[in-house]
Amino acid sequence: MKMTNAALFGFGTIGTGVAKILLNNADRVANAAGQSVNLVKICDKDIAVKRDVVLPPDVLTDGIDAVINDPNIQIGIELIGGTTFAKDLVLRLLEKGKNVITANKALLAQHGRELFETARKYGKTIAFEAAVCGGIPILNALSTALQANTLQSVNAIVNGTSNYILSQMESGGTSYQDAVKQAQKLGYAEANPAMDVDGTDAVQKLTILAQLGFGAAVNWQDVSRIGIEAVESLDFHYANELGYRIKLLAVAERSDDGLELHVSPTLVKTDNLLAAVNGAFNAVRVIGDAVGPVFFHGLGAGSLPTASAVVGDVIDTVLGRTAITFNALNLWGENRRDVPLKKQSEFFGRSYLRFHAEDQPGVLHEISGIFGKHGISIATLIQHAPAQRAAEHLPAVLILTTHEAREGGLLEAIAELERSPHITGSVVRMRVQD
Amino acid sequence: MKMTNAALFGFGTIGTGVAKILLNNADRVANAAGQSVNLVKICDKDIAVKRDVVLPPDVLTDGIDAVINDPNIQIGIELIGGTTFAKDLVLRLLEKGKNVITANKALLAQHGRELFETARKYGKTIAFEAAVCGGIPILNALSTALQANTLQSVNAIVNGTSNYILSQMESGGTSYQDAVKQAQKLGYAEANPAMDVDGTDAVQKLTILAQLGFGAAVNWQDVSRIGIEAVESLDFHYANELGYRIKLLAVAERSDDGLELHVSPTLVKTDNLLAAVNGAFNAVRVIGDAVGPVFFHGLGAGSLPTASAVVGDVIDTVLGRTAITFNALNLWGENRRDVPLKKQSEFFGRSYLRFHAEDQPGVLHEISGIFGKHGISIATLIQHAPAQRAAEHLPAVLILTTHEAREGGLLEAIAELERSPHITGSVVRMRVQD
Repeated sequence: MKMTNAALFGFGTIGTGVAKILLNNADRVANAAGQSVNLVKICDKDIAVKRDVVLPPDVLTDGIDAVINDPNIQIGIELIGGTTFAKDLVLRLLEKGKNVITANKALLAQHGRELFETARKYGKTIAFEAAVCGGIPILNALSTALQANTLQSVNAIVNGTSNYILSQMESGGTSYQDAVKQAQKLGYAEANPAMDVDGTDAVQKLTILAQLGFGAAVNWQDVSRIGIEAVESLDFHYANELGYRIKLLAVAERSDDGLELHVSPTLVKTDNLLAAVNGAFNAVRVIGDAVGPVFFHGLGAGSLPTASAVVGDVIDTVLGRTAITFNALNLWGENRRDVPLKKQSEFFGRSYLRFHAEDQPGVLHEISGIFGKHGISIATLIQHAPAQRAAEHLPAVLILTTHEAREGGLLEAIAELERSPHITGSVVRMRVQD
Repeated sequence: MKMTNAALFGFGTIGTGVAKILLNNADRVANAAGQSVNLVKICDKDIAVKRDVVLPPDVLTDGIDAVINDPNIQIGIELIGGTTFAKDLVLRLLEKGKNVITANKALLAQHGRELFETARKYGKTIAFEAAVCGGIPILNALSTALQANTLQSVNAIVNGTSNYILSQMESGGTSYQDAVKQAQKLGYAEANPAMDVDGTDAVQKLTILAQLGFGAAVNWQDVSRIGIEAVESLDFHYANELGYRIKLLAVAERSDDGLELHVSPTLVKTDNLLAAVNGAFNAVRVIGDAVGPVFFHGLGAGSLPTASAVVGDVIDTVLGRTAITFNALNLWGENRRDVPLKKQSEFFGRSYLRFHAEDQPGVLHEISGIFGKHGISIATLIQHAPAQRAAEHLPAVLILTTHEAREGGLLEAIAELERSPHITGSVVRMRVQD
């Protein structure tokens, strides 16, 4: 009987899950792959710490070079993370004639083009279902079953950490800082959660979704991004009053004049399925010209859910499905000519703004004048004076939503507001999706 | 450049959608398939009636034999429906060396084994994503990306007609009969909607899901089935009072002693994503041992959504992905030994019952005695006396839910209730899912 030998690089949370499935469910994997898949080596710097899986002898090693050079290993699974060592590892695996599987969205967003060119050069493949939304088979759907469609939009909750924090703030009235601490305690957030809460992780995943769904080759650094750090409890209160919930959305939306890509906290109508995505879950809503709206929901992180996607890729790679898909899609090849990227100033949509203004005659007149001057029409406006206003001369909180407008005009209006001596601090901005 | 010639059999709603995509989006399809896919023939008995798509000359024909025998056609798309002529057609196409794509769930549920054996005999493939949940790529997910999982359960809303009717009854207080008429008016229900509302269609789709998800080869006629015909407006009232919504669920659930398969109206907890599936939408919730819960939602019927799945299958067939998946899965081969089917009497779960009982001393005592005798423990009980009871001696409506119990005991209790002279009419039964 034929067999495939695989090596795992990185024995952390996901690596442990992958090892569990490949070792404990070897029969099931062999049945699906049509041959046995042997996890022959696991490489990690730390070979001392105990993991929650029993390994056969001689599998765990810190001698990575021997594993990379082993001609009897056909598949390399990169679960190290980061964009430097991992990049070098993937390039070496490809050069050594191994097919690669990775869960590393940062690596693909940063170096996708170079890695995919290298894979093509050596006639090898890279599979990466686990890089976006963990166990949800969204990349598979975009790459295969939905290929008859021209996509109109992808709206996604791709960062479970942010979604958990926002859910806690909304349901428990928890402050942002306390919600972050809870997320860290539960293992949903890293000690340094910056990449999650500032939108970087979501932008990197959006870059991959945009490549697969629209053939748009984009540098993730160029994608417009607002994190959740400035969201406050009172925003949920007002959002709720207006009929929305707040989610960190990654959005790719096609219009006649190009593709908008952005990540930002967004007021999502309560009857949208994305509004019901709670806790550490991920979800993706795709709209295709034929299929209409399709919604996917599941666990976007965690040991076994992510390992489900990795081992699914192992099976696809062994069977040869990955090779077909990889070659057909020409991933990170030339950008598709029919998908020009819109500049941020040309984005078009509704926004939610919150800021503090002096509570005195003429200020509201000045504010409305600034919006009017930049072509921004105000849809709703809520002004709440602080309780002790008269005594302490505190500024009032102003919350407004705009009608649909060009983002260029909006950004100019915000800059002018922030320069006004009657506005205190900066303007907090979110998008609004009806 | 290589090319593939395809023929369409059946030029109705879905056929028109398929023709639109293949003809109007030929570039996109060619790009995805790596070669042009030519829709060279469309066969239909009726070549006179106008459809909403412009065809090249000589494409539409009623001469089906010439098309089946044409050696220059590599793919046959069966959209005729039914299980007699369509079966003969698919067999002939396979014998003539053509790969087949079908949206016909009745055909697969009825004759799957024979058709798949024939395909294997001739080295050909059958693709059928469109047969379950239209445009939702659920079969693809079960066949590929989720293969690392042992599935625990599949819970699905697979019949849009029933879901539309139930949604109308719930939101509009519409009667069952009026909701059926509305569904017919909107094209969601056939003139004779029996196969939709009696659960037959859902059972046939469940049979396919069980085959793909669990390797369970089952005759659809053997699957336990309750339709929605007996659901009344007051059921929604009481379901809501108890914290549930009512959906026609197709369920495959594995436990230590085997696989339960059944279709029935089900009280679904309001916080379950399936409870939020409204109108003609379909949805599937899969639980895998690694991935956890994954939820898919989209349009399960209609011209273009279903055509999206059919053309996705065309692309997969041209690329060779279908051949890999088809061979790896050994579909409708031998039943998997690890998936014994549970007998209905061994099903285990909660139920909702509604019936009319004489409103006089001793009757409730008799009823509770019957349940106790058969080992059924009552969880909730609501008795509403009719307004004019005293004057007219009308029976009272009793609504109860049971704790978890063996279905054998429940069915015996129901039979005994229905034999009692104090119970009027039959007992309406639904399942309850917490």
